[in-house]
Amino acid sequence: MVVDIKPKTGLNLQPIHQTVAVKFNYNVHFTSGLFELENPLLFEVLTSDGQTEPKKIVAIVDAGLLHSQPELVRRISRYTQLYGRKLKLLAAPMVVPAGEAAKNDPKLLDQIHQLIDSVGLCRHSYLLAIGGGAVLDLVGYAAATAHRGIRLIRIPTTVLAQNDSGVGVKNGINAFGKKNFLGTFAPPYAVLNDCTFLSSLSDRDWLSGIAEAVKVALIKDASFFEFIKSHADALLCRDMDAMQQVIYRCAQLHLEHIATSGDPFEMGSSRPLDFGHWAAHKLENLTNYNLRHGEAVAVGIALDSTYSYLLGMLSRLEWRRIIKTLKSLDFRLYIPELTEQLTQIDHPRCIFRGLTEFQEHLGGELTLTLLQGIGQGFEVHEVNLSLYKQAIKVLSAE
Amino acid sequence: MVVDIKPKTGLNLQPIHQTVAVKFNYNVHFTSGLFELENPLLFEVLTSDGQTEPKKIVAIVDAGLLHSQPELVRRISRYTQLYGRKLKLLAAPMVVPAGEAAKNDPKLLDQIHQLIDSVGLCRHSYLLAIGGGAVLDLVGYAAATAHRGIRLIRIPTTVLAQNDSGVGVKNGINAFGKKNFLGTFAPPYAVLNDCTFLSSLSDRDWLSGIAEAVKVALIKDASFFEFIKSHADALLCRDMDAMQQVIYRCAQLHLEHIATSGDPFEMGSSRPLDFGHWAAHKLENLTNYNLRHGEAVAVGIALDSTYSYLLGMLSRLEWRRIIKTLKSLDFRLYIPELTEQLTQIDHPRCIFRGLTEFQEHLGGELTLTLLQGIGQGFEVHEVNLSLYKQAIKVLSAE
Repeated sequence: MVVDIKPKTGLNLQPIHQTVAVKFNYNVHFTSGLFELENPLLFEVLTSDGQTEPKKIVAIVDAGLLHSQPELVRRISRYTQLYGRKLKLLAAPMVVPAGEAAKNDPKLLDQIHQLIDSVGLCRHSYLLAIGGGAVLDLVGYAAATAHRGIRLIRIPTTVLAQNDSGVGVKNGINAFGKKNFLGTFAPPYAVLNDCTFLSSLSDRDWLSGIAEAVKVALIKDASFFEFIKSHADALLCRDMDAMQQVIYRCAQLHLEHIATSGDPFEMGSSRPLDFGHWAAHKLENLTNYNLRHGEAVAVGIALDSTYSYLLGMLSRLEWRRIIKTLKSLDFRLYIPELTEQLTQIDHPRCIFRGLTEFQEHLGGELTLTLLQGIGQGFEVHEVNLSLYKQAIKVLSAE
Repeated sequence: MVVDIKPKTGLNLQPIHQTVAVKFNYNVHFTSGLFELENPLLFEVLTSDGQTEPKKIVAIVDAGLLHSQPELVRRISRYTQLYGRKLKLLAAPMVVPAGEAAKNDPKLLDQIHQLIDSVGLCRHSYLLAIGGGAVLDLVGYAAATAHRGIRLIRIPTTVLAQNDSGVGVKNGINAFGKKNFLGTFAPPYAVLNDCTFLSSLSDRDWLSGIAEAVKVALIKDASFFEFIKSHADALLCRDMDAMQQVIYRCAQLHLEHIATSGDPFEMGSSRPLDFGHWAAHKLENLTNYNLRHGEAVAVGIALDSTYSYLLGMLSRLEWRRIIKTLKSLDFRLYIPELTEQLTQIDHPRCIFRGLTEFQEHLGGELTLTLLQGIGQGFEVHEVNLSLYKQAIKVLSAE
């Protein structure tokens, strides 16, 4: 098979082996009152690069925040004015729609790029992204692709964004009806988690973000699962200390996984922390994103935990503790979309179609994370669909 | 100034310091007759990942190639059919416009994304980009942003793409009238330099790509400059061996710079190999891209070499050798756009406006590479515009 083809020129030029090593460093800070004039954190982060020229800044704000904090835009301006010799806010903060709508309208991406162009941001300028995970994903994608990368400061304002998506290395928008079809791997310049934003969340958003913490606890850290379980009531009653600890540990586990997986940009076959996510992504789509990502993840966790139990990998006792904990956090574990078109596995509305879409997005062979114990994930490459149908039936009776 | 703000919750959560280390490996191969059935290189590269499932492939082809090689599309299909059990060409090769037009029409990006979606490429699938630098830039950007990164095989077909842009880590398209306003840093999966493609280049394209070799020789490698100088006649007469050696050494120096600069994604202030490029980018724009990139780079090199001489950094003897070598390669060193609106430095058609645009794209303070000898670049952060005007005048008399 191997034929040695010499260039027609007679030269034999050996391949050049190229290695490009890139190291990204960023800090995830925890604070409160980020835009209070006496809080220097944002100023310090923006001026920490040792360069002397004033910093050019543009802020993009999640519209959802303005209902509860109508003064936010003014406070951002006031903060930068205080440091006016060093910080230049080049335009009034731009407001983008909250939630998945931010990722579904390609015009928003264009508008952010236009803003970056019109005010003349450069690679050493800063884009502040203030909002929930979807808005951070949109702004992150815009930042990563303008001038091949403008510095992105993420200021996540939801539980989900503070403990999971907002601290990681991804961005993206939806296209062709597929979640995150467009996007890049691009670490932020810094992440500023401000717990003040959490106070104004609806109960639904406060709780739904905990699903990602349950997820990472289940596959990585039994004692963290124990913490969540024993603090479920406190979390339900909006105890900020308990929530802060959940966010901190969840973010830490997420960051550790990225740093130590050996493949942070998922070029090979190493896995992101996606336990329960194949079904979650599909359910978000099937419910037209009426289900929050965290709520969908909770259903996905319940489904894959039940499947792990039915497979004989997870003990009944542990399975019950997982189901009970999810219920104690007020998560629904079954929604009707789980059983739509269940007999036609290639039907676009069949939940099992999510397996194919999941594989297609990540590439390579199908890989699912299941549980062999609380805190112990393991991977499989095949699924037993009739056992999965049984798991759905079990959940429908919960 | 530093006030210690405790979270209102009373917890004191320390910042989490995150380091993400990513290593990209790729080979730049040199071959001829890449799509000849008896040449196994492409097959070997596509199946080198150790995975057993058939490889999904889509090819995007530069329309400019089809004039001289109308059978190319059929040959790609025939090649993949030969290895039909392992290689699946999922669609007829898509043809995109040649040259800068590929980067100026945002619809092309959408169309490539649509194709990737419709045939179901995943992160372990391959996009083959076959063409000149502009087409590779467009396809590379599409590949880098679909599913957060599909494997890109670059098959550069011009001298410029084989020795410079095609072997590097960038991609991009133009937007808002600015070159490469949108793009990412994304190393290819592999680069396959096939010298056969060079035979069908016009004389203009054959020669213009040599400008990047002169550039890197001037700032890094005096003996390579000597090689180019002494082979100028051979290059002019389309000697393929001489050209192959120029391409190989130029690619090697370019790759070395990326690997050893310490900042391959240009996040800090380290510089790409952009001697002569501030003027080149502006001249391409001012001539509506009628000037080839390489031709513009030759003018930029002549200008910055002359300026280096007038500054007293470069000896008269070395300056003359540079000018003579560029002339011996048939490069024009002066074009009328150099003197348009020369007195109004902020005028959009003034060449000096290119300095601002150059700084804005790269970020941070203005940094230009100049010469203190052949093979010895050095950096400056200030320019003397009246000396630059004098340099333009000198060139106009060459």
